[in-house]
Amino acid sequence: MIKTEIKYKVLYAHTDQMGVVYYGRYFEYFEAGRNDMLYKIGYPYPVLEKKNIILPVIESYCRYYTPAKYDQEITIISILYDIPTVRIKINYEIYFENNLLADGFTVHSFVNSEKMKPSRPPEDFLEIIKRNIKSDEIFI
Amino acid sequence: MIKTEIKYKVLYAHTDQMGVVYYGRYFEYFEAGRNDMLYKIGYPYPVLEKKNIILPVIESYCRYYTPAKYDQEITIISILYDIPTVRIKINYEIYFENNLLADGFTVHSFVNSEKMKPSRPPEDFLEIIKRNIKSDEIFI
Amino acid sequence: MIKTEIKYKVLYAHTDQMGVVYYGRYFEYFEAGRNDMLYKIGYPYPVLEKKNIILPVIESYCRYYTPAKYDQEITIISILYDIPTVRIKINYEIYFENNLLADGFTVHSFVNSEKMKPSRPPEDFLEIIKRNIKSDEIFI
Amino acid sequence: MIKTEIKYKVLYAHTDQMGVVYYGRYFEYFEAGRNDMLYKIGYPYPVLEKKNIILPVIESYCRYYTPAKYDQEITIISILYDIPTVRIKINYEIYFENNLLADGFTVHSFVNSEKMKPSRPPEDFLEIIKRNIKSDEIFI
Repeated sequence: MIKTEIKYKVLYAHTDQMGVVYYGRYFEYFEAGRNDMLYKIGYPYPVLEKKNIILPVIESYCRYYTPAKYDQEITIISILYDIPTVRIKINYEIYFENNLLADGFTVHSFVNSEKMKPSRPPEDFLEIIKRNIKSDEIFI
Repeated sequence: MIKTEIKYKVLYAHTDQMGVVYYGRYFEYFEAGRNDMLYKIGYPYPVLEKKNIILPVIESYCRYYTPAKYDQEITIISILYDIPTVRIKINYEIYFENNLLADGFTVHSFVNSEKMKPSRPPEDFLEIIKRNIKSDEIFI
Repeated sequence: MIKTEIKYKVLYAHTDQMGVVYYGRYFEYFEAGRNDMLYKIGYPYPVLEKKNIILPVIESYCRYYTPAKYDQEITIISILYDIPTVRIKINYEIYFENNLLADGFTVHSFVNSEKMKPSRPPEDFLEIIKRNIKSDEIFI
Repeated sequence: MIKTEIKYKVLYAHTDQMGVVYYGRYFEYFEAGRNDMLYKIGYPYPVLEKKNIILPVIESYCRYYTPAKYDQEITIISILYDIPTVRIKINYEIYFENNLLADGFTVHSFVNSEKMKPSRPPEDFLEIIKRNIKSDEIFI
């Protein structure tokens, strides 16, 4: 698997009147983790876009254990278990000080942005994934 | 089951640079549908809150078929299939002109907001659900 | 002047842990009002976009008097006082039950989306504005 | 004056279909800068809250020069020019690689959260401001 980790500060903007982070905002945290993973493997999303590949979300899921709160610096862990096919599934775990706050996943399809049709991932993208997925390394 | 329907206008604010609604925003649409369902069965969420019952989300899921776009007036269908226990699960379907754009669900627990502990739903809330869930009626 | 009015429901998503609507969300309410004004004068924003005219915001301002709250059905009033030149300024007032909650404005420039250069507004757009701005009518 | 600086990564979530950051999101960037300033002077917002002082926004303004874009690491500068009275005004400047993208301000009142009435700022808060505002130092 490939596992990356990023810190993120909870803003007032993210909270709701229950005094905790609004459930829909976790999907922005997932996005922050996802961007970060692509960066750290050396294939940032804008590079994909330049190759006319976009990654629309086709499924998203989150389970909430303990609410994230304003001003916490949370940790977003992103995990890739499987080599992508026409789809890629990324798992996420959100922590605050070793407590798991939430976890979930997103599934994306590779889409050619010119033809707006499903596509295979670029070869060099697959190469990078295959090279990294064997290890247990955490990129920080 | 109980099924309710509300219209919602897609704002520019909801879109992202892919030219479609950002995947995390659908959970706000789900919330709009959920609020609306509670209203239409005659038990708006603020009434629950006044009884010191809150409904934190413990699970959320969305599948995306066709992207919602700026300026569309989408239809949000909310469906309750089962009588709630200490949890309530609500399903959602998002349509634009008879095309299913996305569907998903949220699961909530009933929590006593004073003790911050799980709670059973209020009796009169269950009454209303039981009375309505037999029918196939769409509240509009 | 041209004055239009639309209702909008405050979601949980809009609130923050102060128990009121987050200050940045009012700019989405302004957008909802702005879209609505363009509709009601018969020149929806997507029509402008098809003519390769976009309206990026170059200034925005909001003053907050009384906080909007969850579940309120607020009224968004949008007002155009002046015939646009290369810019258009729209004013907004947000009410709940006759109480002014907030007011403000946005200023936009007309930009040709192909050349990404400032542009004059389309002639037929100006025509519509000139025809309507004389009256004091509220479109609802 | 007091001047602080923080970096912030632009997410896909922040963009709209114009391909740039949605105008309302800048107010979240301002908030990130504001939080950061309070931290760096040694008086984080949660400390104020514990003293039953909250800082509701009563005015907000932003001018947009060049749009922020997805994936940019922007710089948020927050500036306090004046010693607060019952109000505090903070100015902001958003940069990407030395280009000013936007600037603006927010004005907040000090409110006692128990009585929900305007309040003077806490004495030790004023002390800190007075001590720091003489210098031209940038906290990083």
